[in-house]
Amino acid sequence: MTAESTTGITIGVDVGGTKCLGVVVGADGGIVAEHRVPTPAGPDEVIDAIAEIIGELQRGAPEATRVCVGAPGLIDRDGVLRFAPNLGAAAEVPVRAELAQRLPGTTIVVENDANCAAWGERVAGACQGVDDVVMVTLGTGIGGGIILGGALFRGHNGFAGEIGHVVVDPNGPFCPCGQRGCWERYASGSGLGWLGREVAVAGQAARVVQLAGGDPEAVRGEHVTRAAAEGDAQALAVMDRFAWWVALGLANLANTFDPARFVLGGGLVEAGPLLLDPVSRHFLDLVEAATHRPPIDIVAATLGERAGAIGAADLARRSSA
Amino acid sequence: MTAESTTGITIGVDVGGTKCLGVVVGADGGIVAEHRVPTPAGPDEVIDAIAEIIGELQRGAPEATRVCVGAPGLIDRDGVLRFAPNLGAAAEVPVRAELAQRLPGTTIVVENDANCAAWGERVAGACQGVDDVVMVTLGTGIGGGIILGGALFRGHNGFAGEIGHVVVDPNGPFCPCGQRGCWERYASGSGLGWLGREVAVAGQAARVVQLAGGDPEAVRGEHVTRAAAEGDAQALAVMDRFAWWVALGLANLANTFDPARFVLGGGLVEAGPLLLDPVSRHFLDLVEAATHRPPIDIVAATLGERAGAIGAADLARRSSA
Repeated sequence: MTAESTTGITIGVDVGGTKCLGVVVGADGGIVAEHRVPTPAGPDEVIDAIAEIIGELQRGAPEATRVCVGAPGLIDRDGVLRFAPNLGAAAEVPVRAELAQRLPGTTIVVENDANCAAWGERVAGACQGVDDVVMVTLGTGIGGGIILGGALFRGHNGFAGEIGHVVVDPNGPFCPCGQRGCWERYASGSGLGWLGREVAVAGQAARVVQLAGGDPEAVRGEHVTRAAAEGDAQALAVMDRFAWWVALGLANLANTFDPARFVLGGGLVEAGPLLLDPVSRHFLDLVEAATHRPPIDIVAATLGERAGAIGAADLARRSSA
Repeated sequence: MTAESTTGITIGVDVGGTKCLGVVVGADGGIVAEHRVPTPAGPDEVIDAIAEIIGELQRGAPEATRVCVGAPGLIDRDGVLRFAPNLGAAAEVPVRAELAQRLPGTTIVVENDANCAAWGERVAGACQGVDDVVMVTLGTGIGGGIILGGALFRGHNGFAGEIGHVVVDPNGPFCPCGQRGCWERYASGSGLGWLGREVAVAGQAARVVQLAGGDPEAVRGEHVTRAAAEGDAQALAVMDRFAWWVALGLANLANTFDPARFVLGGGLVEAGPLLLDPVSRHFLDLVEAATHRPPIDIVAATLGERAGAIGAADLARRSSA
């Protein structure tokens, strides 16, 4: 990727599990317009939805002919989604080619969604000016976006940063990717729900179960975070256990990448210090040689749900495609 | 690191658990001379030994005034060994400064030993011409050397690639680094010995125990590999289990770095296909989306015990220090 032009209006689209969000970003980096639609089921329908967003945004900004789309999973350098365990196990979807056919005259690049979010936080959010960053998106699953020496790190095929599928316990629960005990089974929103249900089923989380409508099996991550925000001790204990799993994965990443900063994004960081404080505490216990290395910041993302789309729009500007 | 000069004679020294090996490398990349001494106990004694090697080599090649020393553990950019769990938990040893004091007129750089080995294989061994490589050294512990885009990847402080201490089972055995279930507890020479003893103590590895002198508690990795090389079925089963753990860590690294090739080094790769074949087989079961991504080579290192010293000598040449 070469920095071709830093002027011009571009479009970034972020394909999420529940919604697709597109933004038009002006030459100054500010959002000019945005449009969103619910994410439909099925790869063809998703591509239609992306094309609809781009078309709608281009009606208001016809000069925005460079577009980057962020999508979950393994995206190769030709813009083919090779595999996405959290998108209905979609495989071999030629996203770029399909969009190019629907949108003649538009230059399309496709990138991993977590890479886009990391790049968004790099150009306009929580890691501006920091060159070595691992961004971890804690959503339904875990996404990873890695910036090394100031550049987005993609790996040989574009598949780097699939950190949610690092196995942290080979005897752990099964994962949609086919393995057992992937980090995202514990440290994502799904993981928090799972940890909550374990405690709820054992009869140890009365308030959490109440928020879930009285059914321990219906407990989800949001019920745990809500009860924890109220100060419920049992929910706070679940949050602490959850934070330990988040910190374990961060320690693994610190040992691997030696970053200057971690940026945590995704819906779960809305819990704020309820999550970040215990994560930072456990991280110090888990990282190798904590007392012999400079501290590593662990901070919350600042761009919220727009990080991916903002990053994608900037990547569209820099793309040499 | 900038490529300053590709001419000139340099010295590389590799500090191993049992011996320190130094080489003089000529302008053409060939080894001109070498010298080795047993690794003594204690950081001061190790530094004396390194200085002795360099002094001895410089007597034959006085023009070799640029030296790189590869040492295990976290080495910062000032050449301070911050922490080395497998070197008697040595901490805060100013290796570069101590050597510079003993060797006036010599330019010293200090680098992680696995980084040196990876770089050696890159310039003269198993990954020449491959730009995205993870080298894994399977010795007493596990070392990691990572080449991204053709350059050695060091991380923000120089601590990247501590892949032996990625936790793969939080309930696993304790590690000298202070954590539990680090990858190197399973997938190093120590790990193979541990897996062998588990089976031996259960009375299921007669030939392995025989090679260990009849004591199940005395089983080490070498007894397993020797019995496996003889075709002993029980030893082969231990090797298969061991290969599974090696492959698990490689799959984690593939999901993280998306390399084009893995290079396995260290004493254990002398087992050859007895190790590499089951590792490659298990890897295909463990890596995310194996059928949707280009294959990743898993090959043996070719420089043997000299990889680190050869890589260090080349890094000395390229250093801008």
